Amino acid sequence: MAPPEPAASFAEIRALLPELPGPDLESGTAAVQRQRQLTKPAGALGRLEEIAEWLATWQGRHPPQLERPRTAVFAGNHGIAAHGVSAYPQEVTRQMVRNFIDGGGAVNQLCAEVDADLRVYELALEEPTEDFTQVAAMSEEDCARAMAYGMMVVEEGFDVMALGEMGIANTTSAAAICCALFGGEPRDWAGPGSGLDEEGVKRKVDVVAAGLSRHAGKLDDPLEVLRRLGGLEIAAIVGSILACRLARTPVLLDGFACTAAAAVLYRIDPRLLDHCMAAHISAERGHRPLLEAIGKRPLLDLDMRLGEASGATLAISLLKAACACHVGMATFAEAEVSRRT
Amino acid sequence: MAPPEPAASFAEIRALLPELPGPDLESGTAAVQRQRQLTKPAGALGRLEEIAEWLATWQGRHPPQLERPRTAVFAGNHGIAAHGVSAYPQEVTRQMVRNFIDGGGAVNQLCAEVDADLRVYELALEEPTEDFTQVAAMSEEDCARAMAYGMMVVEEGFDVMALGEMGIANTTSAAAICCALFGGEPRDWAGPGSGLDEEGVKRKVDVVAAGLSRHAGKLDDPLEVLRRLGGLEIAAIVGSILACRLARTPVLLDGFACTAAAAVLYRIDPRLLDHCMAAHISAERGHRPLLEAIGKRPLLDLDMRLGEASGATLAISLLKAACACHVGMATFAEAEVSRRT
Repeated sequence: MAPPEPAASFAEIRALLPELPGPDLESGTAAVQRQRQLTKPAGALGRLEEIAEWLATWQGRHPPQLERPRTAVFAGNHGIAAHGVSAYPQEVTRQMVRNFIDGGGAVNQLCAEVDADLRVYELALEEPTEDFTQVAAMSEEDCARAMAYGMMVVEEGFDVMALGEMGIANTTSAAAICCALFGGEPRDWAGPGSGLDEEGVKRKVDVVAAGLSRHAGKLDDPLEVLRRLGGLEIAAIVGSILACRLARTPVLLDGFACTAAAAVLYRIDPRLLDHCMAAHISAERGHRPLLEAIGKRPLLDLDMRLGEASGATLAISLLKAACACHVGMATFAEAEVSRRT
Repeated sequence: MAPPEPAASFAEIRALLPELPGPDLESGTAAVQRQRQLTKPAGALGRLEEIAEWLATWQGRHPPQLERPRTAVFAGNHGIAAHGVSAYPQEVTRQMVRNFIDGGGAVNQLCAEVDADLRVYELALEEPTEDFTQVAAMSEEDCARAMAYGMMVVEEGFDVMALGEMGIANTTSAAAICCALFGGEPRDWAGPGSGLDEEGVKRKVDVVAAGLSRHAGKLDDPLEVLRRLGGLEIAAIVGSILACRLARTPVLLDGFACTAAAAVLYRIDPRLLDHCMAAHISAERGHRPLLEAIGKRPLLDLDMRLGEASGATLAISLLKAACACHVGMATFAEAEVSRRT
């Protein structure tokens, strides 16, 4: 399928949704049938079996493959950083992007381990979003363009896409999005991020509350939540998730900010995330209730809270293992192993 | 250090224990210091940082390495299989060993994914242990020889050892060991194993209860618990854990039966397991309380319950990722990234 045209309005984004492909049940069923033949008790590989079936269903082929993984990191800056809601100064977004390009980030080492192709996309770092305690973070045009950018960078031919972000202050934006989408109090969603002290978390909670108050009454539409409280990298991730669905590329979601982007789609239609797995549960406070809200059980629980697609990339190793077992194991008949008594 | 001489008595095993090396705190401290310099918020890699520090401490070097992993699977047969405590017939132990040798098992595919050297060790499959509801499963000599065998197969020069087992009916033996070591009721420790139905689990509970009753009053010594209720492959794993400590090879423990072997050492001295990590938590009923009893938090929780070192081998990918980040990431100074505000 041809890549979607650049969108400059939410109407164009919405028009795309009915075009998205559904599950390939034939491939999924073929995977289930093969699992039953392999030399192991039924279900004994647990979630590795679930992964193989999910990959077949959303890659639209059996057997599933995991030879060409890609990791995409989207970077953006946030007007709310001026409120001191991060333990790090805003220039760190650009410095870390350079670190990724130079090969020095955690995500670089993790990509090398799983042979993932790493792409880093900057979204106008010199032009942070507006301060959402005052006005909407983005115009509809800027938000839709960021989504279209996230769509356009998705290429066909990859077996999985690990999505992540880098953006000083973006867990504040993510907390505001979650609070707007799912309710609760700002303190339920705002945590220490990259390492705020107690005072800092209190400032963050206040910024989230101020944003919700400023935009009260205008947050019923999930795309408006994204536009008013989100960020450019978060909008780009929303676009990428949609484009991966079109390209039949299953998605691994990283931590809190990345999952908040996915939650915008969940609130439009939960089925829009059926091709996505939660790679891990982050130590950031809001991630557990967020995963519960979107009904995703994480693959890994390792107290990570780095972002930059580190958890999503690490989980690629589990997908490779699941495919290797699914494709490479002998059947009971091939190995002449007795079945159940 | 030279490999230990074959032991034929528990006295010889016990004499070895004071010789086992302790932690290399200098290497562990060097790992902690390097973590602080890497381009990430302190602690943001979560358990990957814990892994790097643990590997340095127990490999006795900094930086830690994960280039040469090995997986060892020990196979044995059990007299209690005659009670119908497994969903599979006893000949499956040998059939699955052949399947491993032919490359058709899950563990073969998982080893290939992480470049682990796989070794499979048979312990006299044609001579199952005795039925522990009637007599001790093993003589002291047979038990000590199996432990010595497990020791002798450990070679120096491996960066981690993933330990696992294959043995029809061995979760019944493991349940009996756990009940003897930690108390509780047989039904707390005996689960469906490879797929018993409710009736089968009831038989298994009865067999465990009969074993504990038969050997009542003689189960104060953990090595006697191993001898009376264990199996040859379980004894070999106990020996291997000790030999890995001598060889400065950290250990990944697999599922319920493998962890029950480790628990014998824990009951002698909890520090004997400081060089071991729990690779995963199995879906088998007794594994969760067992991990709690020995104070180990599992790395993975994927509902696996296959044994054959599958969970331990899968976790090698996390250790490789931890080492790659620890060694390969840039420091703040190298990358010119600003530190906290």
